[in-house]
Amino acid sequence: MADKRMGAQTVALPSTPRLAAWSAIVGPKEGEGPLGACFDRVETDDMCGQESFEKAERSLFTSCARLTLDKAGIRPQDVHALLGGDLLNQIISAGFAARQLGIPFYGLYGACSTMAESLALGSMLVDGGHCARVLCATSSHFSTAERQYRSPLELGTQRTPTAQWTVTGSGSALVCEANAARDARVCVTHVTTGKVIDLGVKDANNMGAAMAPAAADTLLAHLQDTGRDYADYDLIVTGDLGSLGRELMLELLRREGRALPPERSVDCGMLIYDASQDAHAGGSGCGCSASVLCGKLLGQLACGELHRILFMATGALLSPTTTMQGETIPSIAHAVVLEHVGKEE
Amino acid sequence: MADKRMGAQTVALPSTPRLAAWSAIVGPKEGEGPLGACFDRVETDDMCGQESFEKAERSLFTSCARLTLDKAGIRPQDVHALLGGDLLNQIISAGFAARQLGIPFYGLYGACSTMAESLALGSMLVDGGHCARVLCATSSHFSTAERQYRSPLELGTQRTPTAQWTVTGSGSALVCEANAARDARVCVTHVTTGKVIDLGVKDANNMGAAMAPAAADTLLAHLQDTGRDYADYDLIVTGDLGSLGRELMLELLRREGRALPPERSVDCGMLIYDASQDAHAGGSGCGCSASVLCGKLLGQLACGELHRILFMATGALLSPTTTMQGETIPSIAHAVVLEHVGKEE
Repeated sequence: MADKRMGAQTVALPSTPRLAAWSAIVGPKEGEGPLGACFDRVETDDMCGQESFEKAERSLFTSCARLTLDKAGIRPQDVHALLGGDLLNQIISAGFAARQLGIPFYGLYGACSTMAESLALGSMLVDGGHCARVLCATSSHFSTAERQYRSPLELGTQRTPTAQWTVTGSGSALVCEANAARDARVCVTHVTTGKVIDLGVKDANNMGAAMAPAAADTLLAHLQDTGRDYADYDLIVTGDLGSLGRELMLELLRREGRALPPERSVDCGMLIYDASQDAHAGGSGCGCSASVLCGKLLGQLACGELHRILFMATGALLSPTTTMQGETIPSIAHAVVLEHVGKEE
Repeated sequence: MADKRMGAQTVALPSTPRLAAWSAIVGPKEGEGPLGACFDRVETDDMCGQESFEKAERSLFTSCARLTLDKAGIRPQDVHALLGGDLLNQIISAGFAARQLGIPFYGLYGACSTMAESLALGSMLVDGGHCARVLCATSSHFSTAERQYRSPLELGTQRTPTAQWTVTGSGSALVCEANAARDARVCVTHVTTGKVIDLGVKDANNMGAAMAPAAADTLLAHLQDTGRDYADYDLIVTGDLGSLGRELMLELLRREGRALPPERSVDCGMLIYDASQDAHAGGSGCGCSASVLCGKLLGQLACGELHRILFMATGALLSPTTTMQGETIPSIAHAVVLEHVGKEE
């Protein structure tokens, strides 16, 4: 225990589980964005050949999971657990995908933080010797999220400037024991588990503001627990705070005397769309951080362009019911440290 | 790894994490049932003094979690993780309780299997040395579930004979490292992770039939992986198959040549209400297996009245949307082996 626990919220993973393969599949709008060329596949139609948006999202999840296993040369029956979730009620994308894949399944819900939650739990299960191979996966879809959380699509509701655009896409990564993945060039070294933080934001169209305090809280806990500084990381990667939420996080960190140099901070929600795409404050959804991580950042870590990043996805744990009942928005952020593994090792 | 993995779905936990404390709080109807005297607290009003059913459920969850920590003499800030979930959209009972408790939080969703999912993941995190103390907790509430999944309560919809009654209640248990809980009399020795199974049942008012195949599948996997037989267990405890679902599970096991002696099989959904309570096929909900486990079974294990049980909660991973889209009902069952710890150890 002593060699693993670091402070109140952080765990070191002495066995440094490896990411043996990963992939990202996105919708057409994401394909037209600045990262379009990074993704493994861009669907030309956001229905993905299915008869409902929900089935389309499930198809993205399943295809992406299968692609990751194919890349690793691993059959579904050799994966000890699928840890995944999505934004839909009863996490039906993940649950129904698990039915198709036939992999033992633990369903997770952390809203847009789910990819980090999945990597955190998956890496601990591998480090603990309970699973040799864990598939971590999430998805989201603009049209399923919009009609579940907000308004019927047909209504054409005007979006506020603080609104974010739910990413249509899925990302997945296979976490393996280090000695069974000697060619893998990315490892997980630490996990910081987030607390639920709520500073009283009530506006469900301003998720960035609701989630920024959770991001700041987890980041400060991580620095405190590990004794590290920002200089120890090439990038602090947030999930989908968007442009407004990221500014608020930077402000909160400044006030705590731990100002994060803006050049070391990137937000997946700000990377996936450009200003011409009418996404307002940026992208969001479980598929946002998952597809940017698996489409772009893991590749940069694998080739050594990045050496160490803190991947910290945030989630807003509200529901339409809590909003109608006048509640504020509790949020959470989980963080995992991802490192390049040199060939000498 | 070799000493922990057992076959395709089962893991042994060599450190045998202990349950240091547990508790169960239920609503008035559950208090009037055959187990009424077993629970730590019976609310006299299913609103629990709150202004909405959702807030009442959250209050059950939070009070139950606090009671378990009080019994163990552990402060919330000394718990490394809360693993929990519930049936409500965006698992708001667990998420909002985590906000009040201030414990690092991993949100789970396994429908009515969530208590077993939580104990499975929590026990592995303790066994792996990543957490010294994990709080596992779930809740459900008849009135929140009914209006979210089925019909407005005011409608007084006639229930079918196969329907089950969602338990108003919460159960929670604190999983600790063995050497930090020397007085604890219950331990977790194995985990069997379930696969999503779907034999094509479409009737959302007959969850027992939908979940029975998942229970049979996980049980057969457990026997196969461990080389054990039913005689190795005092009881095989299912979560909330209800009377019909349990019969179907027994039939499926008979057909596989592994007939489960009925006297070794109990279902939490059949224990919590009696025939006079109009609960039809039995109780259901995350709070059903959680409150029966934490209200009755763990006490029996602690005093040696039971020596070893397989606690196997089942969940139906459908949503109202999948039902409306004509989908069948995917289900899952996770199992944990719970044992009495003798005082000699």
